[in-house]
Amino acid sequence: MREVFHQALEDIQNRLVEIAELVTVAIDKATIAFENGDVALAEEVIADDVRIDELALSVDELAIDTLAMQQPVARDLRIIVSALRTSASLERMGDLAEHIAQLARSRFPERAIPKGLKSTFVKMGKLDVEVARTLVELLRTQDLAYAAQIRDADDVIDELHATVYEKVLSEAFAGDASHVIDAALASRYHERFGDHAVSIAKKIVYLATGDWTGSADPEIEVVDRTPGV
Amino acid sequence: MREVFHQALEDIQNRLVEIAELVTVAIDKATIAFENGDVALAEEVIADDVRIDELALSVDELAIDTLAMQQPVARDLRIIVSALRTSASLERMGDLAEHIAQLARSRFPERAIPKGLKSTFVKMGKLDVEVARTLVELLRTQDLAYAAQIRDADDVIDELHATVYEKVLSEAFAGDASHVIDAALASRYHERFGDHAVSIAKKIVYLATGDWTGSADPEIEVVDRTPGV
Repeated sequence: MREVFHQALEDIQNRLVEIAELVTVAIDKATIAFENGDVALAEEVIADDVRIDELALSVDELAIDTLAMQQPVARDLRIIVSALRTSASLERMGDLAEHIAQLARSRFPERAIPKGLKSTFVKMGKLDVEVARTLVELLRTQDLAYAAQIRDADDVIDELHATVYEKVLSEAFAGDASHVIDAALASRYHERFGDHAVSIAKKIVYLATGDWTGSADPEIEVVDRTPGV
Repeated sequence: MREVFHQALEDIQNRLVEIAELVTVAIDKATIAFENGDVALAEEVIADDVRIDELALSVDELAIDTLAMQQPVARDLRIIVSALRTSASLERMGDLAEHIAQLARSRFPERAIPKGLKSTFVKMGKLDVEVARTLVELLRTQDLAYAAQIRDADDVIDELHATVYEKVLSEAFAGDASHVIDAALASRYHERFGDHAVSIAKKIVYLATGDWTGSADPEIEVVDRTPGV
């Protein structure tokens, strides 16, 4: 029985790693499409999101089957519940990559990247890709050092997110209203992408440290508490 | 054993209703604060969100305990997994109300509501409150007619969301960049609020109709697939 449970757990973990890899490809392509106004690449990201959604659904089905058939308790139970949460966060990260691709497509043939913000968005895009890659390693190895790296990268993304608003509101900003909307939304999508990765990392830290409520590591901040602007 | 399971299920349902009621109060106050630039009301929403987060966590703990102790299978298992998802969506709806309140606070003493968009945001706010109230009734009664009402109201919210971008991009729009940011973010928060309610409604429909994968009612659309703009 224990053997069967561990096999199921390994299957779930492998699928989560596979989804995280697809999310990494999606955010990489989406940020390049957004920066270069590459509509063909944007279309690819949008089309490929279906696969992420399907895989996330398959993880949920496998997790529910495992709950039904293996009846895990204590830490094993929390690992399965955590996998359900992780699949939802990964699916949402795929959606955010898709939203960035949709922004690139919606402004074509103009570039979606607002004037004067190119270097900021290039940095945010690189950090989002780095966060996704680190998340793959964290899910694969369960090495908590990766969780700290994700948190650190997310802090920088949050700082860049704040500077986007500052730049758009400065008198030097040359863009029009459509550039302001693109900047506000794209920056928000980049920032939420990092938040979801931190949320997953936090769950893995809690499973390792045994504290489910969130007080174990005060440095790992509660997600979804990002201010509105 | 069956008796104990049903008691646990009732406890979980009652707490979900309680959270939905708090979310209704939060979105009602947040939209009024945003429309009137009422910073005191905004502060209330921000302070009260802690209670929503605590209750959502308590539902999760109760659901996990029920899984461990009652070892439900088949439909009972899916009801518990669905409760975990519902608590996460309700918690997120509370966050979105808080984000709208934060927008109101951040622009004080100016009103956050962008010029020329007052009537649109008043309509969106009312629809969000209506959606939250209907969600309370759906969670309380499990009457699927409420699910259809939520979906219909969300369709109107989506239409209003699209008109916000149109208005901001029109030549008649008199606001500056900060108004454009406020409009883009606030509209997005209102729209996501409706999406989460539809997501919860969809789960309840699936539990009632027995189709977990989402193909039972093609009219209930998959959420989180809203376009980026």
